[in-house]
Amino acid sequence: MSNIPLNQLEAWRAAQLLARREILAVDLARACLDRVSERDGELHAFVHIEPDTVLAQARALDAGPVRGPLHGLPLGVKDLFDTVDLPTAYGSPIYAVNRPAADAASVALCREAGALVLGKTVTTEFAYFHPGPTRNPHDLRHTPGGSSSGSAAAVADHMLPLALGTQTAGSIVRPAAYCGVVGYKPSAGLVPRAGVKSLSEALDTVGSFGRSVRDAALLGAVLTGDARLGALAALAAPRIGLCRTPDWSQADADTQQAFERASTVLAPLAAILQDAAWPIDLPDLVVLQKAVMSYEMSRALSHERVRHRELLSQPMRAMMDEGRAISGQVHASNLAITAAAQLSADAMFAQFDVLIAPSSTGEAPLGIAATGDPLFCRGWTLLGLPCVHLPFATGRHGLPVGLQLVGRRGDDYRLLAVAQWVHERLLG
Amino acid sequence: MSNIPLNQLEAWRAAQLLARREILAVDLARACLDRVSERDGELHAFVHIEPDTVLAQARALDAGPVRGPLHGLPLGVKDLFDTVDLPTAYGSPIYAVNRPAADAASVALCREAGALVLGKTVTTEFAYFHPGPTRNPHDLRHTPGGSSSGSAAAVADHMLPLALGTQTAGSIVRPAAYCGVVGYKPSAGLVPRAGVKSLSEALDTVGSFGRSVRDAALLGAVLTGDARLGALAALAAPRIGLCRTPDWSQADADTQQAFERASTVLAPLAAILQDAAWPIDLPDLVVLQKAVMSYEMSRALSHERVRHRELLSQPMRAMMDEGRAISGQVHASNLAITAAAQLSADAMFAQFDVLIAPSSTGEAPLGIAATGDPLFCRGWTLLGLPCVHLPFATGRHGLPVGLQLVGRRGDDYRLLAVAQWVHERLLG
Repeated sequence: MSNIPLNQLEAWRAAQLLARREILAVDLARACLDRVSERDGELHAFVHIEPDTVLAQARALDAGPVRGPLHGLPLGVKDLFDTVDLPTAYGSPIYAVNRPAADAASVALCREAGALVLGKTVTTEFAYFHPGPTRNPHDLRHTPGGSSSGSAAAVADHMLPLALGTQTAGSIVRPAAYCGVVGYKPSAGLVPRAGVKSLSEALDTVGSFGRSVRDAALLGAVLTGDARLGALAALAAPRIGLCRTPDWSQADADTQQAFERASTVLAPLAAILQDAAWPIDLPDLVVLQKAVMSYEMSRALSHERVRHRELLSQPMRAMMDEGRAISGQVHASNLAITAAAQLSADAMFAQFDVLIAPSSTGEAPLGIAATGDPLFCRGWTLLGLPCVHLPFATGRHGLPVGLQLVGRRGDDYRLLAVAQWVHERLLG
Repeated sequence: MSNIPLNQLEAWRAAQLLARREILAVDLARACLDRVSERDGELHAFVHIEPDTVLAQARALDAGPVRGPLHGLPLGVKDLFDTVDLPTAYGSPIYAVNRPAADAASVALCREAGALVLGKTVTTEFAYFHPGPTRNPHDLRHTPGGSSSGSAAAVADHMLPLALGTQTAGSIVRPAAYCGVVGYKPSAGLVPRAGVKSLSEALDTVGSFGRSVRDAALLGAVLTGDARLGALAALAAPRIGLCRTPDWSQADADTQQAFERASTVLAPLAAILQDAAWPIDLPDLVVLQKAVMSYEMSRALSHERVRHRELLSQPMRAMMDEGRAISGQVHASNLAITAAAQLSADAMFAQFDVLIAPSSTGEAPLGIAATGDPLFCRGWTLLGLPCVHLPFATGRHGLPVGLQLVGRRGDDYRLLAVAQWVHERLLG
């Protein structure tokens, strides 16, 4: 066994050692909890954590049979997911004392597979823009991104190897990019959202954070029910499309350099690497995503909007007012336009296994009063396509920079296998 | 004002009188509560009702401004929907003492529009097959259908004018058919499901019950956010396709006669009325719907499956075991096949405004140990198409019989307007 501290082990490696009882879940949990004690006073990744309960659950895992592929692995759970044994506030004072009656389905699936819930991680208010207190572990003056702020920061800071997040606009890929970890947003429809606070049914997606593609995919296997994700095979050279998107001018020099570097490194190795043409019949996906999101959030959060308006942030109220100005008739039309756009976008994958695209406009912005811009994620989320953020570079302020790979809907296995192949070469 | 008892008023008519303060919400509520007192001892449509709270809320509505299109209308809420002020058990002993932290989004939207929640209506266990105690108001020896058993029975029995239901296989259209009321299942994606116990995200749909198309559409307008549904215009003669479906041989003589009668009555009145060809490239939708449902339910209810298996009914456990035998890879493929089938089915609406199809195999079966077969609903639910059940005939045992109209996805307004046109002619 290696000499690397337990809390720094990758999840897949820890899982092997745990399954062979070469390390104990309680020791791994203690190493993670020690890291939290040491660091979370300034990082603020966690909103709730009960160390004694965690250690007791870890001992129970050590004493029992190996439950599944996540046996004994500490897991961070974004506080947008219901947990039966921990308070769940959804980032809102409205739910300050909320105790759910059940685990979210995805949390229950992870626990069934042996995961050890270490604590609840900070989310922005109902996973929208009003930030929590979390800071970027690479530079505390910067935002970790949002809305899955605590999950991304905790994984990046070696507080735990795996965490759950959700993406409605860019809430997995953006914080993964800002914190320099791998974030995986599965294809729409694969992971149950039961027990996750619902914002937009057309958009909300449950996904995973890890420090490697293999780790994010290990958790993804349990979430999607596709066991192949837990054992990504070596691949023949993939066909890669370079997709700068219509918003390329918003990508700063760091992001553009990362893109060019990936292109240069991968060109001689890929089976195909060429520019992917943006389908000319696609509508403005960013505008459309905003309309779908504001309409659906203003309705999904009707209870809060009607009964607790004074406890909603100003940006949330403003967004809901925008949504309320859209009629159901227009929304039905927006959903139909979205369905047609999904068909158009699918055509890009006749030529390519994956697309490479920007994850964010650049490094994590300075300050924690805002969580950055999900511009480069909105369209892919609307299209329901699986995305993986790969960190591999550093920007002008020394903060992480990377890119996302986008796959064909439903073909998450291929996306992740290619992502592993690409990541190895970009890091190599 | 008419002499018809208040509890027998159609919702649209009561809404007019309430808005003009010609009747009081408290009097309407009292008339409904009296009917419940008189009848629910044998009908068992309600699982929870708090008359004093209802009357206090009614008085508050009478004392305040007219809130919206449902102002003062008593509403039954299937006990699958969270309610902040009433217990919510989802038809399962696991949640015998559950008190949700918020109203379901659809309930909040109805309350915002002025609806008065009269009580929680019986659902089968997690809206699957294990029945509640509800009986058919037309003959207490027969099932009211499921899973929205209490909502359909209460509306049919004049306990209230409107009720909420959900459909995952056939849980709106089937009980509407058995109880002889109008049931409206909107297009997939239009009504938020937040706060409704999630079973299958590909299938679960929130909808409405009323005693007329106009009533079901009045509630539907609030649910879908499409105000046009609250004022269905008179139509030119519609184009109608007769769709017997591949399961026609399972329709008994009562259903087949209703179908022939509708064809005979409408043929001289419709712009087009002819057989609709079943798209030859459609897969077996019933088999596919069952696979999607069992896979997704076994995962959405993971908390209950893992922690409370002994409190689940045997049919629920068996269905979950079937779902667990399906891999995530196969499920992703099933979702892709479903998406292709939705495109194929859409082609039928180039020729027709609506399809007429069977709602059920026949009258409500004898006994309350089972809730009947959703065979004729599974496919339409999988396709995400809007459906309206129209009661207009009587079967050999004197129980209600009718048919459903199926519309183009997203074009719920046209479906309901045609449904009103068709219903008037079938009843006339």
